[in-house]
Amino acid sequence: MRLYSVMTPREVQNTIKAHFTPLELELIELGASGGRVVGKNILAFEDVPGFDRSIVDGYAVRAADTFGAAETLPAMLDFSGEVKMGEKAPSLAGGSCFYVPTGGMLPQGADAVVMIEDTEMMGDLVNCFRQVAPGQNLIRRGEDLTQGDVVIEKGRRLRAAELGLLASLGITEVSVYRNPLVAIYSTGDEIVPVHTANLAPGQIRDSNALALAELVRRQGGKVVQGGILRDDYAEFRQGIEDLLPNVDFLVLSGGSSVGKRDFTAKVMQELGETGLLVEGIAIQPGKPTLLAKCKGKPVLGLPGHPVSALNIFSLFGSCIMEQLQGFSGENFPATVKAKLVRNIPSRQGRTDYVRVKLKRTGEELFAVPIFGRSGLLRTLADADGVVLIPPGNEGFLAGRDVEVILWD
Amino acid sequence: MRLYSVMTPREVQNTIKAHFTPLELELIELGASGGRVVGKNILAFEDVPGFDRSIVDGYAVRAADTFGAAETLPAMLDFSGEVKMGEKAPSLAGGSCFYVPTGGMLPQGADAVVMIEDTEMMGDLVNCFRQVAPGQNLIRRGEDLTQGDVVIEKGRRLRAAELGLLASLGITEVSVYRNPLVAIYSTGDEIVPVHTANLAPGQIRDSNALALAELVRRQGGKVVQGGILRDDYAEFRQGIEDLLPNVDFLVLSGGSSVGKRDFTAKVMQELGETGLLVEGIAIQPGKPTLLAKCKGKPVLGLPGHPVSALNIFSLFGSCIMEQLQGFSGENFPATVKAKLVRNIPSRQGRTDYVRVKLKRTGEELFAVPIFGRSGLLRTLADADGVVLIPPGNEGFLAGRDVEVILWD
Repeated sequence: MRLYSVMTPREVQNTIKAHFTPLELELIELGASGGRVVGKNILAFEDVPGFDRSIVDGYAVRAADTFGAAETLPAMLDFSGEVKMGEKAPSLAGGSCFYVPTGGMLPQGADAVVMIEDTEMMGDLVNCFRQVAPGQNLIRRGEDLTQGDVVIEKGRRLRAAELGLLASLGITEVSVYRNPLVAIYSTGDEIVPVHTANLAPGQIRDSNALALAELVRRQGGKVVQGGILRDDYAEFRQGIEDLLPNVDFLVLSGGSSVGKRDFTAKVMQELGETGLLVEGIAIQPGKPTLLAKCKGKPVLGLPGHPVSALNIFSLFGSCIMEQLQGFSGENFPATVKAKLVRNIPSRQGRTDYVRVKLKRTGEELFAVPIFGRSGLLRTLADADGVVLIPPGNEGFLAGRDVEVILWD
Repeated sequence: MRLYSVMTPREVQNTIKAHFTPLELELIELGASGGRVVGKNILAFEDVPGFDRSIVDGYAVRAADTFGAAETLPAMLDFSGEVKMGEKAPSLAGGSCFYVPTGGMLPQGADAVVMIEDTEMMGDLVNCFRQVAPGQNLIRRGEDLTQGDVVIEKGRRLRAAELGLLASLGITEVSVYRNPLVAIYSTGDEIVPVHTANLAPGQIRDSNALALAELVRRQGGKVVQGGILRDDYAEFRQGIEDLLPNVDFLVLSGGSSVGKRDFTAKVMQELGETGLLVEGIAIQPGKPTLLAKCKGKPVLGLPGHPVSALNIFSLFGSCIMEQLQGFSGENFPATVKAKLVRNIPSRQGRTDYVRVKLKRTGEELFAVPIFGRSGLLRTLADADGVVLIPPGNEGFLAGRDVEVILWD
């Protein structure tokens, strides 16, 4: 058996960033761009807002006309009419005012808005009981964005807020990185298709391909299911050579399991370039993971155990996806704070990911570690997330406040 | 102007749960069920695993044959051959052993596995240097799931792990709640379509419809874009009556803004049953929100300001979606811990949601409050999430550790 050198999780992430680059750009409709990553800086080609706007219901005035106004000594202004939403406001003469609704355009000549609560209408006069400063209660033209500003930087992922921002600028198409097409193979002589009604002794159904496909899809990728490869060097090699030219990323579920690890590594090395990049990760579960660059594309060899396979894909497969998608922001892993109810032992020198279930008692949240052999799928489905125990640590004691990394 | 009574966020959530029920069930392919909510308890119709399996590479033995074995006094067992993955294991005679790989089936007669690290092969004999207890290093048939067990409860959302679990059981179709079809109207005389190239004075483009649609889609819903309604009682009423029969949930962006709030409320009341449920929420931004049940379906009237509209939809629109989707689990809001860099003032008696940007300095994460008028879309796109300031609080001081609720 070959011996492998093991990397830290951070080293693996850096290796991924060093070796893989984003896919090409494509122009798509703004409405279909949610979740995609912007491929070029997007510039504002007009001012936002395009006109001075009131941010309250009130009276547009010249601020100077209100100076000194107070509860006991209101400024009296002529009422000149009403600004309608969506219509060009008329001009304002000195000593007069226009009613303007929230969002309405400011009349030319006005430089502030008195809130309606601070006024009283008396016939054709409006009494203002509070003075306003120039610029008060309004947004200036271009205050949100000025023509030529970078609205959204290359490498940012488009969320609802970004879609709204681009729509407000009249941008209806965006240039984004193409989403990866990911091939998934399950490997193993014991694996049979999911629809197999009755299992022969020793057989298990191919559960990883479906679960991994869901992780790929959640991240925007499309999936090509390659089916099941027998534990055989020639079949592995042929399988990879068949699909790799047509996809952007290839995943071998079970490819790093004992017994086939050596020939998986051999195929990966032979299909360079660059060949093997990662031969093991100082992590539990999922240590034997293999990662290679074959003909320029990422090929990930996952352990066959469901828990290990999903843990590794969530941590590193998703990192490969982001790299192909051109995402250059930081991911802030979603966590919740909870109190640990039981001790978790850990081995020094490796990062442990311990599955936990969250339970609420009143306002307090508790994390219940799920100890189970990594083959047990039920322990995965029971888990709300994982607690990370860093390598320099012998474990966490019950009662400790921990951050639970949520599973999506 | 009518006066409205204001509810707390919790009261609004309870109102939603009390008034709306899940949509009907549909049977779909397992592979397409990610993110959907299970409509019936799913039972295991076989044992998982279906056979006793080794969880290590090693030798399947009768545990009793190894009792007393130690480094200095190995138990010597006859080597009977190898168990192949995916094949039925032969029977084991006393005093002998079979090699079995991880995941391989245990031979009949064996009740434990000695790890390969604790053995040495000598010709036809295997020396075991460590004793094992019955059950050691194996998973028993049915240990993960026993026939008849509830695998996944009604009301749970299907993630990758659940898909894997169901696939391992040979379940290829699942009964899930139908996903909601959501109609979105933008309202306002000042609103023009996104593709409008040149804005006339006073006009703004319809940015909310696209942003809200993205939030609906992220949660699995489908969107019907209703277009733009003028600020007119009859047009509002006709618009709602046109689309409501064909959708499960109707959203009026801008429907609760000043000036149209009264007739939005009137239409909602007239189109009962049940009519108006919520007339305002003690929350900032988004206080004037209206919620009604019209002809049995939820109708949500949002403020027109983009920040308010997205905040309210994220908090309460998503709650309505979950109710229609039949989700009965708890949502643990995804947060990250960060140190506040500036004071945030707040008003007692209402819940403030303050947008923040996250910045990393070394290992530490800082939350930078984004103070901006709620009309400014850029402040939304800049934000990584929000800090919640509870009603009984006058604000947070700089330096405090806060939980930032991440925006998806």
